Amino acid sequence: MTASNELRVGILGASGYTGAELIRLLAQHPSTRVTMLTGDRAAGKPLGDVFPHLAYLDLPILTKIEDAKVDECDLIFCALPHGTTQEVIAGLPKQVKVVDLSADFRLHNVDTYAEWYGHAHQAPELQKEAVYGITELAREAVAKARLVANPGCYPTAAQLPLVPLVEAGLIDSDDIIIDAKSGVSGAGRAAKEGSLFTEVAEGIHAYGVASHRHAPEIEQGLTAAAGREIRVNFTPHLMPMSRGILSTAYVKLEKGASAADLRDAIAKRYEGEPFVRVLPLGQVPATRHVRGSNHTLIGVVADRLKGRAIVISVIDNLVKGASGQAVQNMNVMAGLPETTALMQPPMFP
Amino acid sequence: MTASNELRVGILGASGYTGAELIRLLAQHPSTRVTMLTGDRAAGKPLGDVFPHLAYLDLPILTKIEDAKVDECDLIFCALPHGTTQEVIAGLPKQVKVVDLSADFRLHNVDTYAEWYGHAHQAPELQKEAVYGITELAREAVAKARLVANPGCYPTAAQLPLVPLVEAGLIDSDDIIIDAKSGVSGAGRAAKEGSLFTEVAEGIHAYGVASHRHAPEIEQGLTAAAGREIRVNFTPHLMPMSRGILSTAYVKLEKGASAADLRDAIAKRYEGEPFVRVLPLGQVPATRHVRGSNHTLIGVVADRLKGRAIVISVIDNLVKGASGQAVQNMNVMAGLPETTALMQPPMFP
Amino acid sequence: MTASNELRVGILGASGYTGAELIRLLAQHPSTRVTMLTGDRAAGKPLGDVFPHLAYLDLPILTKIEDAKVDECDLIFCALPHGTTQEVIAGLPKQVKVVDLSADFRLHNVDTYAEWYGHAHQAPELQKEAVYGITELAREAVAKARLVANPGCYPTAAQLPLVPLVEAGLIDSDDIIIDAKSGVSGAGRAAKEGSLFTEVAEGIHAYGVASHRHAPEIEQGLTAAAGREIRVNFTPHLMPMSRGILSTAYVKLEKGASAADLRDAIAKRYEGEPFVRVLPLGQVPATRHVRGSNHTLIGVVADRLKGRAIVISVIDNLVKGASGQAVQNMNVMAGLPETTALMQPPMFP
Amino acid sequence: MTASNELRVGILGASGYTGAELIRLLAQHPSTRVTMLTGDRAAGKPLGDVFPHLAYLDLPILTKIEDAKVDECDLIFCALPHGTTQEVIAGLPKQVKVVDLSADFRLHNVDTYAEWYGHAHQAPELQKEAVYGITELAREAVAKARLVANPGCYPTAAQLPLVPLVEAGLIDSDDIIIDAKSGVSGAGRAAKEGSLFTEVAEGIHAYGVASHRHAPEIEQGLTAAAGREIRVNFTPHLMPMSRGILSTAYVKLEKGASAADLRDAIAKRYEGEPFVRVLPLGQVPATRHVRGSNHTLIGVVADRLKGRAIVISVIDNLVKGASGQAVQNMNVMAGLPETTALMQPPMFP
Repeated sequence: MTASNELRVGILGASGYTGAELIRLLAQHPSTRVTMLTGDRAAGKPLGDVFPHLAYLDLPILTKIEDAKVDECDLIFCALPHGTTQEVIAGLPKQVKVVDLSADFRLHNVDTYAEWYGHAHQAPELQKEAVYGITELAREAVAKARLVANPGCYPTAAQLPLVPLVEAGLIDSDDIIIDAKSGVSGAGRAAKEGSLFTEVAEGIHAYGVASHRHAPEIEQGLTAAAGREIRVNFTPHLMPMSRGILSTAYVKLEKGASAADLRDAIAKRYEGEPFVRVLPLGQVPATRHVRGSNHTLIGVVADRLKGRAIVISVIDNLVKGASGQAVQNMNVMAGLPETTALMQPPMFP
Repeated sequence: MTASNELRVGILGASGYTGAELIRLLAQHPSTRVTMLTGDRAAGKPLGDVFPHLAYLDLPILTKIEDAKVDECDLIFCALPHGTTQEVIAGLPKQVKVVDLSADFRLHNVDTYAEWYGHAHQAPELQKEAVYGITELAREAVAKARLVANPGCYPTAAQLPLVPLVEAGLIDSDDIIIDAKSGVSGAGRAAKEGSLFTEVAEGIHAYGVASHRHAPEIEQGLTAAAGREIRVNFTPHLMPMSRGILSTAYVKLEKGASAADLRDAIAKRYEGEPFVRVLPLGQVPATRHVRGSNHTLIGVVADRLKGRAIVISVIDNLVKGASGQAVQNMNVMAGLPETTALMQPPMFP
Repeated sequence: MTASNELRVGILGASGYTGAELIRLLAQHPSTRVTMLTGDRAAGKPLGDVFPHLAYLDLPILTKIEDAKVDECDLIFCALPHGTTQEVIAGLPKQVKVVDLSADFRLHNVDTYAEWYGHAHQAPELQKEAVYGITELAREAVAKARLVANPGCYPTAAQLPLVPLVEAGLIDSDDIIIDAKSGVSGAGRAAKEGSLFTEVAEGIHAYGVASHRHAPEIEQGLTAAAGREIRVNFTPHLMPMSRGILSTAYVKLEKGASAADLRDAIAKRYEGEPFVRVLPLGQVPATRHVRGSNHTLIGVVADRLKGRAIVISVIDNLVKGASGQAVQNMNVMAGLPETTALMQPPMFP
Repeated sequence: MTASNELRVGILGASGYTGAELIRLLAQHPSTRVTMLTGDRAAGKPLGDVFPHLAYLDLPILTKIEDAKVDECDLIFCALPHGTTQEVIAGLPKQVKVVDLSADFRLHNVDTYAEWYGHAHQAPELQKEAVYGITELAREAVAKARLVANPGCYPTAAQLPLVPLVEAGLIDSDDIIIDAKSGVSGAGRAAKEGSLFTEVAEGIHAYGVASHRHAPEIEQGLTAAAGREIRVNFTPHLMPMSRGILSTAYVKLEKGASAADLRDAIAKRYEGEPFVRVLPLGQVPATRHVRGSNHTLIGVVADRLKGRAIVISVIDNLVKGASGQAVQNMNVMAGLPETTALMQPPMFP
């Protein structure tokens, strides 16, 4: 591909973990060129000062957002903190496509947004055109979108197996329990006491029980699949690993349905998908089997409680749960082969 | 206390992690003396060859089981692998009290035992007198017992909060889901590929889903509490920490009951207990807050799913989940103050 | 011991890790009572809000330093950040004994202090009476001291094996290389990017190479032992564990000396010491064999390079490297048995 | 590249970590095809049974070594355990090129081999033609070799910075101290007590002090560089991470040389090398900055001890320390661009 065909890509907020992960993946993309990077605190410095592991790459110097040459980009990844993003994106040139990795455009209903985020949405008009982009579930809409709201990590892990089950009417949509376990990178690179090595190592705890902001995001997807209002239990846990999410969903089978039916429905839904793999009935996945990759693994097991099943899914929260899915969406939006730059195998051990 | 009053204690199988943990705790016990240690592969050696961190203690040399001077003991801890224990204990002198840390005497029903362990029970008569010893739930029986079956780690973490709720009829006993997360020491010190650092670090996976041997043990306790046959979902996960179990139980409230009622019922049940603490409603515990101690922490949160609650409990699997509870039971059996040697605070970080 | 005989103990700066560790140890001390705790940001709250693992203990409410009832204490542990401590201690009543866990009074020479800490010492008069308290090396002075400067973690691990060797003239004091590896708790509980789980897990790096403030502290001790100015190489590394320091010292033997001589000299120096153990020649210690305890383990191995030896020592940085040694010093200062509250065995795994 | 141009590659011993890592890298290689995989215990099974993270790749079924179609391969990677390899390789067809990841052909001198490995070399003739393949230091010989002995992980990390210094006569070759720290994957996937999570997590220890088999391998390289017999101190430590080696070398400057000279000599030696990067003087690398990549980072710092410097290097032991360098050597041997399949950036966090 000649330079004139290259997709010029910018990253707003390149000094966080999702920014670094975008760079890691894009470094292997043959038809994009990173032309703009912002990082407020590190403006004026090379990215290698912030992320030494990327110092050897040929990349633009970090700038402040206000100095970013946004109109020299064909597509911009927005990896800014939640809440600051709406106005920034509203101000971008209309011809630039956007994949937003924040939570700012994920909830279709701005009232729900206001309820969970504590302030009115700042760009309600733009919200209307935003496409919620779990690629496998919204490929066509993503292909036409100017603005894709890249899904949260937990919601990606939870919805991929559950949406097909709710759609197919195989499970009781009013009795879905999602017990999720996440690595620490989901909390970002901000210096917080709760993310210190000493506070996280050698232990586990639940947090945001019945109050985590990813609950309405999951409910939005399942509500659409069910065609009626759905609420779920969502209980995240923080555990000592850097990457990975494992979601253990406990579901009640609709009359006549078996665990095997669930497994098959999910497998059928994702047949031919390059990034979703369903294990044989009774087998369960491990987060370390997707580490560093854009893969999702899903396993289904029949429960000891009659009429119940366990549905387990794993992703790498920084890849399929963030930057990998963002690149996947970019590929779709730009008409590139969807798997470009995303075929590197998982890294184990 | 003079030497003649000392309780002479032996440990069969002292070269595993629960053996080491017994020694760690007993080293601070003012009224016991360890007089016998066995460890087949290390017979003839000091314990310090097996556990260098204990090398400085004045302890008897390890012997083979057949050479163990069992009648010079007042009480024996049996920390042998599951399955080998029944005959060994059946052969012990009748005047010696026994706390068995294996699973061999935990299931009252020998048919259930045969079903889950794949062979007939070798000591069915002895099984009849065995007391299942979650100390807080069976104190009086433990006090009179000759043989205490020390509970499994997961069953201890699960039953402590759930038994009072089932007893009180506050939750639907047919809809109990227990998602548990454990550190690696629960797998013992045997050299297994699945317990290697490289296989466990930086990841999580479920295992024994709908087939773990601790399920019938939990069900036995809840069945007794309910007065009718109970089955539960029990889904354990292996995660990268050495110690600790966190059990997240998802329960359905009986009509009229609230999460606050659950919290209060548990708190009332354990009022005055030195080793069980119930957090204020809505607060949740972390395994690292009980590490190295005999404590159990319990938290209750109201669910987003109407009529449901989340009940989280944490223990150190090697202490309250094994050797600590064993010492607690020993204290009760010997008429010693129950907290002796068990008052050291948790170690954090 | 009746209440009137109890030692009333205060802790300035109880909301850091060394503060928590002091509480953990003192909770098992039969003849002290904690009567005062300060924690500026958490003033007015119970310690359990800051350290939930200690919530069950009966302790005074945290206050601001200016509100601390310092004259109701017999002895005060000062666990404040480096640099803020000098004036605080200078202002304490003269009858109160002090163990200072900061670096503020460790360097006898206030010029060296100014050079390494970037500002003039604020209490040079007080500095003169401060006793540098590696207990085993300064027991008599500690016993008489009003103010003990509790040594740094690295300097404790390094000096314990090296001081006897320098004193005995067995090694070339001009060719001492100390490669040290530390857990993350040494960096304290402050929220710093470099201490995040994601930044520390699954990796290692050196830091403060040839510029770490513990170098002059080690040199001060070796200089005193040698009777002439000594400089050392000191290269610390940060690694993914919460507790523990391993110091690998590379030394050159003086003519005629062997590795066995080194081992014997160290063993002889610490004969009868309850907290220092020297392994047989050729054996090496692991940090996990001292975790949670006040022990130091030391091993000596002959090098492949002729005339050289390797001397390895391990401590728990929060115990013998901080709070444990502080309690040990307190015991000596108060005329209590030196091992009181410090006899709990290491915790492994 | 058409299929007929593809390099047909086999892996003997594909069920270990270096085997899995070869597959991970080769999966991104556009001009090789894996045509043969052996794995004795798993013979007859797909690789995905052994390594679920690779299950989705289209790969040949595992066979026993004796059933391997070795003559359908152009190049074979031998990842068998040390000691079993010599006879296997001696039996391979002469037209097949071999990269041996074991230690079996690394030592030129078969007497040295016998001394360190405890038995006579089984293929002394073959040993003569084996090229020791740190690619950057032996590129031309590798290009012409039929059999490349792929270097050990520690020796790669140690020699890359030290060989140029010894060659240039900038350091005293009789006073080289190498303190190395390794992740656990270096111990392989064998089920050993010492590699269990519980034995490795939260701790560090030295091992093989003055007796590790990588010492003669390092000495062989430095001896060649110096033109006279060299011995070194080499002290490896095992620490809780899966991947990574950090080597801290303490060196004595020859008269007139400065730390800056050392840094410049190394930088000059590796100018233009795609996989070796030298940091600015005074900066030090971290293992996590090379994780998953074939990179080596090197930093040089002036010591506090006059006339001394510290030289720190990091690699991923499974990539540049094993399978990555093996692929790099394969590329050179096959006349392919050296960086093919090796350009994926490090993975952090």
